[in-house]
Amino acid sequence: MRAPAELLEEARGGSRAALARLLSYVEGGGEALRATAALAYRTPVPYVVGLTGPPGAGKSTLTDQYIAAVLAARPEGEGRLGVLCVDPTSPFTGGAILGDRIRMQAHATDDRVFIRSMATRGHLGGLSLAVPDAVRVLGATGSARVLVETVGVGQMEVDIASAADTTVVVTNPGWGDAMQANKAGLLEVADVFVINKADRAGVRETRRDLEQMLDLGGARDWRPPIVETVATSGEGIAGLLEALDAHRAHLDGAGLVDRRRAHVRAQLEAVVAAALRERAAARAAGAALEAAVELLLESRGDPYGAAETLLSDP
Amino acid sequence: MRAPAELLEEARGGSRAALARLLSYVEGGGEALRATAALAYRTPVPYVVGLTGPPGAGKSTLTDQYIAAVLAARPEGEGRLGVLCVDPTSPFTGGAILGDRIRMQAHATDDRVFIRSMATRGHLGGLSLAVPDAVRVLGATGSARVLVETVGVGQMEVDIASAADTTVVVTNPGWGDAMQANKAGLLEVADVFVINKADRAGVRETRRDLEQMLDLGGARDWRPPIVETVATSGEGIAGLLEALDAHRAHLDGAGLVDRRRAHVRAQLEAVVAAALRERAAARAAGAALEAAVELLLESRGDPYGAAETLLSDP
Repeated sequence: MRAPAELLEEARGGSRAALARLLSYVEGGGEALRATAALAYRTPVPYVVGLTGPPGAGKSTLTDQYIAAVLAARPEGEGRLGVLCVDPTSPFTGGAILGDRIRMQAHATDDRVFIRSMATRGHLGGLSLAVPDAVRVLGATGSARVLVETVGVGQMEVDIASAADTTVVVTNPGWGDAMQANKAGLLEVADVFVINKADRAGVRETRRDLEQMLDLGGARDWRPPIVETVATSGEGIAGLLEALDAHRAHLDGAGLVDRRRAHVRAQLEAVVAAALRERAAARAAGAALEAAVELLLESRGDPYGAAETLLSDP
Repeated sequence: MRAPAELLEEARGGSRAALARLLSYVEGGGEALRATAALAYRTPVPYVVGLTGPPGAGKSTLTDQYIAAVLAARPEGEGRLGVLCVDPTSPFTGGAILGDRIRMQAHATDDRVFIRSMATRGHLGGLSLAVPDAVRVLGATGSARVLVETVGVGQMEVDIASAADTTVVVTNPGWGDAMQANKAGLLEVADVFVINKADRAGVRETRRDLEQMLDLGGARDWRPPIVETVATSGEGIAGLLEALDAHRAHLDGAGLVDRRRAHVRAQLEAVVAAALRERAAARAAGAALEAAVELLLESRGDPYGAAETLLSDP
């Protein structure tokens, strides 16, 4: 294992290979992750946009257009744009997913952007803990902004939203019922709604369904705007960027800190729980566990006393 | 709180009120549970029959008939029959469920049987940990045999089977598809199959489906017999008792110890995990957690280091 400090230095100097290695440390978990995190978390957190939605909604094409638009409008010295692609439902590893993203390869050699498909190979908390770690590694190596694209499937979209400052939920025309079924989840995470494939029939109905859902969701200090896009042609992307900027401006000040505090608290609780699971596996295993099992079998102890003994052994 | 040692003494002397109090300690968790377990686990474990199946399969009626049949055939000095009724899907508390079991009240004043509806009010591991504890309390107060009746819903039937020496899965005629969907779960837990309501149409098809499932399940040292019953009339109950005795005879010797060792190991691992969750909740909370959150927000630490600090604080 090469020292994370060295790799971080090289990555800051522009080495994409060093950055890729650090992200592999994050995915792999264990000591390499811990050493990487100890450094990466010492720099300010980048602004994170989350993009989520069901398979087939057009998220990769939107991501591609987002990258192009951000690079075109990029202010001087803003630093690199980091992009993390997360598909926990894919049976393929990171490399295979990336291979699928042929359009993104247009950006793959652009120094102003770094694209990575995330996989977990050993991270104790799975993707929902690996993603915020990867965000911090990108932040520590020159990315001021990170886009996290995830397939929204059940809990995963909520988990990923808990790493994002602004979360975009991508829908398509004709998805009234599907959205209805997941109403609570969508209201919880969405800061911006996109109706992608807006050149198809049913846009008006989908917009009406979303508006109704927002009406019923009660008063909040931010009402998610609904942006129509046709990602394949780039139509509406400028409107999406405006909506993102508007939400960021809305958050600037106390709102952003409150949101990040809630995210950090949830992340820390998850890390504590994962660390305890690891300890439990280490403690309640092997010879000590088997000895306790035999005592219990002989009616010479109870499981609560035995657990206490297992957990208090040095 | 009255001392569990005193209550145990009274319950052994025949006090049903003292026994009920001990079982409430188990349900309530905490110190009272621990003190009760420390005593109850010092006596040999009773023989446990688990009876599980979906709502509406006729489990309470079968249980009622089982109680009557066991009492009628009861060998001298076998001790009391304990019955635990577990319905985790019921919105009612133990009392309400018991009220529903009007037929069982025929046995409610019989000194040779003790019936209890289990609820959890604070047990750290939920019903799947409370049930084995309650079994041991019954064992320590004169029950040599315990029947655990549970609604089989998803994981619950597997959990309860892990407290039983012999598990009966109750089906009804016409349940081919439902059983097919849960094939793996049924094969994992069933030692005896019952086709209850066997006076209805479709018995032959259900038996054929079960046989096929068992054929495909591969060779095991015990092939679960399939017993037909009509619980409302008592038909087939004698056959069920024979099947239970056959399985118990099959297990006697090494098989029973192996099975109980696996159960005890799973139980101990679950208790260790639950104890760690309790510790985590206590540690990663309050002022220490909030202080760590602020450090993280200021980029002055990483969550892995912070978790370690939280967990190592005395």
